[in-house]
Amino acid sequence: MNDSAAVALVDWGTSNLRVWLVDRTSQVLGERQSPEGMGSLTPDRFAGVLEAHLAALGASDDLPVVVAGMAGARAGWIEAPYVETPAPLGDLFRQAVAAPGVSRRVHILPGVCQRQAGGEDVMRGEETQLLGAVEAGLRDALFCMPGTHSKWVSLEDGRVVHFNTVMTGELFQLISRQSILRLSIGEGRADDHHPAFRSAVEEALTADFSLTTRLFSIRARALLAGADEASAAARLSGLLIGAEVAAMRTFIGPDRRVQLIGSGALNDLYSQALVLAGAEPVPLDGGALVRRGLFAAAKALYPERFAETA
Amino acid sequence: MNDSAAVALVDWGTSNLRVWLVDRTSQVLGERQSPEGMGSLTPDRFAGVLEAHLAALGASDDLPVVVAGMAGARAGWIEAPYVETPAPLGDLFRQAVAAPGVSRRVHILPGVCQRQAGGEDVMRGEETQLLGAVEAGLRDALFCMPGTHSKWVSLEDGRVVHFNTVMTGELFQLISRQSILRLSIGEGRADDHHPAFRSAVEEALTADFSLTTRLFSIRARALLAGADEASAAARLSGLLIGAEVAAMRTFIGPDRRVQLIGSGALNDLYSQALVLAGAEPVPLDGGALVRRGLFAAAKALYPERFAETA
Repeated sequence: MNDSAAVALVDWGTSNLRVWLVDRTSQVLGERQSPEGMGSLTPDRFAGVLEAHLAALGASDDLPVVVAGMAGARAGWIEAPYVETPAPLGDLFRQAVAAPGVSRRVHILPGVCQRQAGGEDVMRGEETQLLGAVEAGLRDALFCMPGTHSKWVSLEDGRVVHFNTVMTGELFQLISRQSILRLSIGEGRADDHHPAFRSAVEEALTADFSLTTRLFSIRARALLAGADEASAAARLSGLLIGAEVAAMRTFIGPDRRVQLIGSGALNDLYSQALVLAGAEPVPLDGGALVRRGLFAAAKALYPERFAETA
Repeated sequence: MNDSAAVALVDWGTSNLRVWLVDRTSQVLGERQSPEGMGSLTPDRFAGVLEAHLAALGASDDLPVVVAGMAGARAGWIEAPYVETPAPLGDLFRQAVAAPGVSRRVHILPGVCQRQAGGEDVMRGEETQLLGAVEAGLRDALFCMPGTHSKWVSLEDGRVVHFNTVMTGELFQLISRQSILRLSIGEGRADDHHPAFRSAVEEALTADFSLTTRLFSIRARALLAGADEASAAARLSGLLIGAEVAAMRTFIGPDRRVQLIGSGALNDLYSQALVLAGAEPVPLDGGALVRRGLFAAAKALYPERFAETA
């Protein structure tokens, strides 16, 4: 039994589950990671899966839990309705929903939605990373969060005032693996050092660029000029990421900073594209931010767990 | 035996095969249609498949044949190398390639390619429809040929001076059936009368439109505003076709005419999008055009078959 744990923090997405046991100063006492994402679970299994991970970490029976992510979607454990923009991130905990079927206290944080006609959008999970960024002092900033569905988020005074989801990652997968371009891309992987990536981003940043009218050039270059798989993959990635950065460039402020929350090769690609667009990418650790956001919500939800006992 | 046949005309694409027997005035004496497209055949089967259809039509053993389409691709029956832009369509027959493995004369017409750096593109099959249009007097015109891979082609004095392939149809299939948007589109079909189609086209025609940053709004509208499947499908179609028309608008001339070669529901969608973009769509029959183009090539390749005998 881990008696110094103050709370368990859970990031429960579509594909993955992460659980941290932390003390009241946010020190991590234990951690679990699993592919038991929301997408692979029926609602009746959430409680059991969570309890199994908590038991493995030696959590006490009454340890409270704060959850962020797709577990709060309509098809998840229990729906935690969206907070609407402009969404004050420090208040997310007020719309947290108690999870059913567990004897301990488990709260699921809400997502954020944007209802304005023509700009409808939703997020679940990213808002908790952003809360972590606010806790770290980033109350006014532009965030780029690359992934299957990239998010671009404008924060003002700790509130989400505007955001946009871009399906770049999912389009890359579909087009590179299943469209006719698969014949030219094969097993090629996008590399930010490849000249074809850079030139495709620059092409996407020009005025009047149209993504769909340029995609087939990847196939034509392979047929006519013998372009290899690596350059075809780099070109597709550059056109897609370049189109995303070009469209979102309008949100970049005079300080040119874009807070980049991601990891690995994808971050390298976005960093390069942002620099080409005249921005200054500032890399942030998404895992640390979501933990920090969950911890802030936990302190608000269960203040007694963090009270001084001296 | 059909003794009045002058030549057989064949349109052999990736998915379909069409064969016409025509007399020396281009009257159709017999016709066959089959799903034996190039995509389903290995090179050793082309000769046999063609002979079987010719036999069913009662063609004589020495009837010559002209073929257009993907049969001339590298992975087809035999490669017919591309004619480069600016490509004089009346001269396509000069680069026709004799097909192997048949005792009769069979010529496969070349495709057209555009090698200029940054504008690489290829077509196979459309050039023969365009030759048909030239035969019909359309020597200077802009053509829109909707499909899995739409083609936009500028003809000047009977030559292909510029063209562009847009993967609109293939993207619609991939995104509507396999991306996260499938959850909102379901069995919905795009309808040009749906207000969501029109408004999506208008959105795509605005300055600074970015397709990829707008796609996810289809999902968000379904989640937040309860948009139904038909409106989600119409919106996706409108964004994609609108993006295509918006990018190609620059090629529309002062007479505003766009020659539209296609059929069915897709033509209705493109017609509406073209009108919204300020163009004047002129519908043409693609089947009639390819036959006319093949006939013109046949007369050049086998002049003795068309000589006056009176």
